[in-house]
Amino acid sequence: MTTVTVLGSGVMATAMSWPLRDNGHEVRLVGTHLDREIIDSIKETGVHPNLDLKVPDGVRAYQLEDAEEAFEGAEVAMSGVNSFGVHWAGDQLARLLKPGMMVIAVTKGMEADENGDLHILPDVLASKVPEGLREQVSWSAIVGPAIAGEVAVRHETCVVFTGLEADVLEKLSAIFRTDYYHVWISTDFVGCEVCAATKNCYAFGGGFMEGLLDREGKTEAKYRRYNYGAALFGQATRELSQWMDLLGGDPETPRGLPGVGDMFVTTMGGRNVKAGRFVGAGVPFSEVRDERMKGVTLEGIAAIEVIGGALPKLTERGVVGEEDFPLMRHLHAIVAKDEPVNMPWEKFFGGEPVTREG
Amino acid sequence: MTTVTVLGSGVMATAMSWPLRDNGHEVRLVGTHLDREIIDSIKETGVHPNLDLKVPDGVRAYQLEDAEEAFEGAEVAMSGVNSFGVHWAGDQLARLLKPGMMVIAVTKGMEADENGDLHILPDVLASKVPEGLREQVSWSAIVGPAIAGEVAVRHETCVVFTGLEADVLEKLSAIFRTDYYHVWISTDFVGCEVCAATKNCYAFGGGFMEGLLDREGKTEAKYRRYNYGAALFGQATRELSQWMDLLGGDPETPRGLPGVGDMFVTTMGGRNVKAGRFVGAGVPFSEVRDERMKGVTLEGIAAIEVIGGALPKLTERGVVGEEDFPLMRHLHAIVAKDEPVNMPWEKFFGGEPVTREG
Repeated sequence: MTTVTVLGSGVMATAMSWPLRDNGHEVRLVGTHLDREIIDSIKETGVHPNLDLKVPDGVRAYQLEDAEEAFEGAEVAMSGVNSFGVHWAGDQLARLLKPGMMVIAVTKGMEADENGDLHILPDVLASKVPEGLREQVSWSAIVGPAIAGEVAVRHETCVVFTGLEADVLEKLSAIFRTDYYHVWISTDFVGCEVCAATKNCYAFGGGFMEGLLDREGKTEAKYRRYNYGAALFGQATRELSQWMDLLGGDPETPRGLPGVGDMFVTTMGGRNVKAGRFVGAGVPFSEVRDERMKGVTLEGIAAIEVIGGALPKLTERGVVGEEDFPLMRHLHAIVAKDEPVNMPWEKFFGGEPVTREG
Repeated sequence: MTTVTVLGSGVMATAMSWPLRDNGHEVRLVGTHLDREIIDSIKETGVHPNLDLKVPDGVRAYQLEDAEEAFEGAEVAMSGVNSFGVHWAGDQLARLLKPGMMVIAVTKGMEADENGDLHILPDVLASKVPEGLREQVSWSAIVGPAIAGEVAVRHETCVVFTGLEADVLEKLSAIFRTDYYHVWISTDFVGCEVCAATKNCYAFGGGFMEGLLDREGKTEAKYRRYNYGAALFGQATRELSQWMDLLGGDPETPRGLPGVGDMFVTTMGGRNVKAGRFVGAGVPFSEVRDERMKGVTLEGIAAIEVIGGALPKLTERGVVGEEDFPLMRHLHAIVAKDEPVNMPWEKFFGGEPVTREG
């Protein structure tokens, strides 16, 4: 039996309780300062209010002030915060981690520094932990297509545990693996993390096809815009490969669960797709953010701001070509400059030939 | 102005009339012996009954007995039959083609010979045309995500024209290209055709996720099975790459429109997905074929029978490994042996590690 302490009690972090408890491990769920009501609810009724499910028997819930107790004797520390909370989580882990612990993160995103260089979030998380301790724990992450609620109702899910140390990944995956939660491992840490962050951006575009139908009064029309969505999916897959080239990931990584697999699941629905649908329908993004979806956490949009925002700097430095990443650049223009959806088809797939006869 | 004569008046072939007529070309639509009522309808009312749309002004419709007249002076001959009609179409082209014509096919599928070797359909089509004439015409094909009705209502569509002769592809694409019908070209003829055929197989699996929910009485449940569908999509993408290795396609081809793009659109709906949903719900495939969907043309299923059926022969000959193509093998077992849906997850992505702790 392994003790797994989870920092953050959002839906994804909490969903991990199911495979862990099914394997007989001890699960300690620690809420952040934003999770007080979730922890109260689990303590009182066992129900996670956002998942709308009773957590497995035996899961122990802790408010943040009891975090030290929760980390006592834990072998695995899971960072379950979202991308907005990574610095905060790093600060917490700096005081809570003990040498020998295995850290595993579920957060998807990237950060950019002022010259446009991009950093994967496990590195950002680790950077907050003092040298000395930092090297005495291991750093891993979970990527791949996993809608939290589906894991929690034990629907088959296939994910990848990634990090630099294969032996650690083998240990961790053995702790989580069940008949419905299937785990592969990959030491392409950069490639897996970059796929996880960038596919979140491209999924925003997954909402455009429905939005365009809304705009044209064709919401219920027989002929949809799947050709449009498929072309975006193809170009997004091409750009995932380009990100691998640029940031040093394995070219195979986008072709499996961390890339096209996760992009598929994220395109099937969720908040980013909903935001994309509004924009496709003609609503300026600033209005989506400030009115239509006010207060809703949009991690995909945040990722577009970071990653798409880094592209002009990388282009200026000559690190990427002006014609590279046309879809990401358009997504960024929509989010950052309120531009309407207007696909630069002619730039896709290396450039459409311009000849036309007729 | 170019004269384009189309053999077969199904939805895909007919949909090509929109970009062609928008570019001012002459379009002559020749029905097969199965298309008599379609041609009658177009002649009488202009409406294509299966598309449920009036074809563009100026499209000329011909019954099969007037095919010679329709081919007179044509520069482009489009083969618009489905995969079941390729031999028939080849026989017709043998009598109708003239030296110098450019043939372009929209059919998706493959054929296998008795030892399991697979052949792309343009080669099968060409093989029916006598030597001498065969070399005096060019052979090309259209691949990529294009639902016919969406092209016909001028929704943006991105496709690839493929063949061995780049100059022919440039000419053809210039004839078809419009503001909504975007055309790239690829000389990876084998890779493009193999993607087109195999993605049709994998799309059958796209119906399983909904079917499994039906079986469990969760048709309207909050938590779906998108994780399941995404894992299949990831494994299918991996297998597309393996097909390239096996049959000599470019490894880049599955990553764009002909591969993941087309697989995405085919997974969004259609007859193969509907058949997959029945099977996911627990209906033996033979019952789907003989009762639930009796008389419905299922090209994806036919492709599974051909391609999945070739795998045991290729394995026996040592051309592919026993552990390769686990998803295609399972799809074939479902179709050919009435096996229930039961994903061999442990064989996916090169094999899931077996360690489990708990």
